[in-house]
Amino acid sequence: MTTTASAPPVRNGIDTAQVYGTLDVLKAQPEAARFEFRVRNRWIDGTHSRSTIHDFWGAGAEDASRAEPFVLDASEPPVLFGHNEAPNPAEILLHALAGCLTLTIVNVAAARKVNLYEVSSTLTGVLDARGAVGIDDSYRNGFERIDVAFSIRGDAKAEKLQEIVDRAKARSVVYDMVTNGVPVAVDVTTD
Amino acid sequence: MTTTASAPPVRNGIDTAQVYGTLDVLKAQPEAARFEFRVRNRWIDGTHSRSTIHDFWGAGAEDASRAEPFVLDASEPPVLFGHNEAPNPAEILLHALAGCLTLTIVNVAAARKVNLYEVSSTLTGVLDARGAVGIDDSYRNGFERIDVAFSIRGDAKAEKLQEIVDRAKARSVVYDMVTNGVPVAVDVTTD
Repeated sequence: MTTTASAPPVRNGIDTAQVYGTLDVLKAQPEAARFEFRVRNRWIDGTHSRSTIHDFWGAGAEDASRAEPFVLDASEPPVLFGHNEAPNPAEILLHALAGCLTLTIVNVAAARKVNLYEVSSTLTGVLDARGAVGIDDSYRNGFERIDVAFSIRGDAKAEKLQEIVDRAKARSVVYDMVTNGVPVAVDVTTD
Repeated sequence: MTTTASAPPVRNGIDTAQVYGTLDVLKAQPEAARFEFRVRNRWIDGTHSRSTIHDFWGAGAEDASRAEPFVLDASEPPVLFGHNEAPNPAEILLHALAGCLTLTIVNVAAARKVNLYEVSSTLTGVLDARGAVGIDDSYRNGFERIDVAFSIRGDAKAEKLQEIVDRAKARSVVYDMVTNGVPVAVDVTTD
């Protein structure tokens, strides 16, 4: 009797059997690929606001997996007229980018049978506030550039780990949005 | 003896005297306008990672106003291979956009002597996951579009409130980045 070694279904904390099953579903039922994410935000005072993040549409149905909403705040430090109630929105955007690149690296590594030991990163964004405050339009409002420095260790050669990062850049949802931009429509009700 | 009515220094929770003082500093000392924000992220397991947000450079010095770092997590719901340890990165990007537009609206309203009673918003982002999972390149990875619905009430006419929102769109740091994109450089260390 012979046994064939099968890949462990969970690698890097990712259930690869679930991943491949999901890919089959998305190929067979393209309508399952539509996701709609929602955030509700409410101003509290000064620069301070609060978002609740709970429901979304995905995989052909309203998601019901979250018993409670996530609650995230945003504000500014005193030098930017707030009271440090929370990170500021530019920092939160860097967090979104870090989280997305990291989980995409982990997913890609799992699919390529690479076990990761460490994925850590430092993100830096630089801006000149003369743009956002409106005193010199030769500066944009946002970051001139973002630098991401990853430190990655796993049971693969440096070349393969670099390929995994390159693939993650090509597939990351937030990296796409931050580098390429997204059309944003703003509607206002005032009654 | 006559007294002149002066504008209250704090409006909508914003110290307008501080704002105007800062504008004067930025005009006189342009080097004070450089801000560098930093986020450090570490993979925990599966889709779950954690960012610490603490120090930054701004107004000509390393900021020392935050005694403790902010800690923010990111993950995915089960349908996207996580365990709902935190909101997902695309939702966090919407939160960053909501927080930035909201505080910019509040700042602009304060400068224009408008008292706000309510600023709330719902943000929606739609994507087709066939892009990000790599089975159909005709779909982008990120949101096709983002819709922002604001509800705003204050002691000004609808037209003026709309003008405040328009000005905030023109000055928001994160709205600029999300709509126009930012160059991102990714460096990898694997030893």
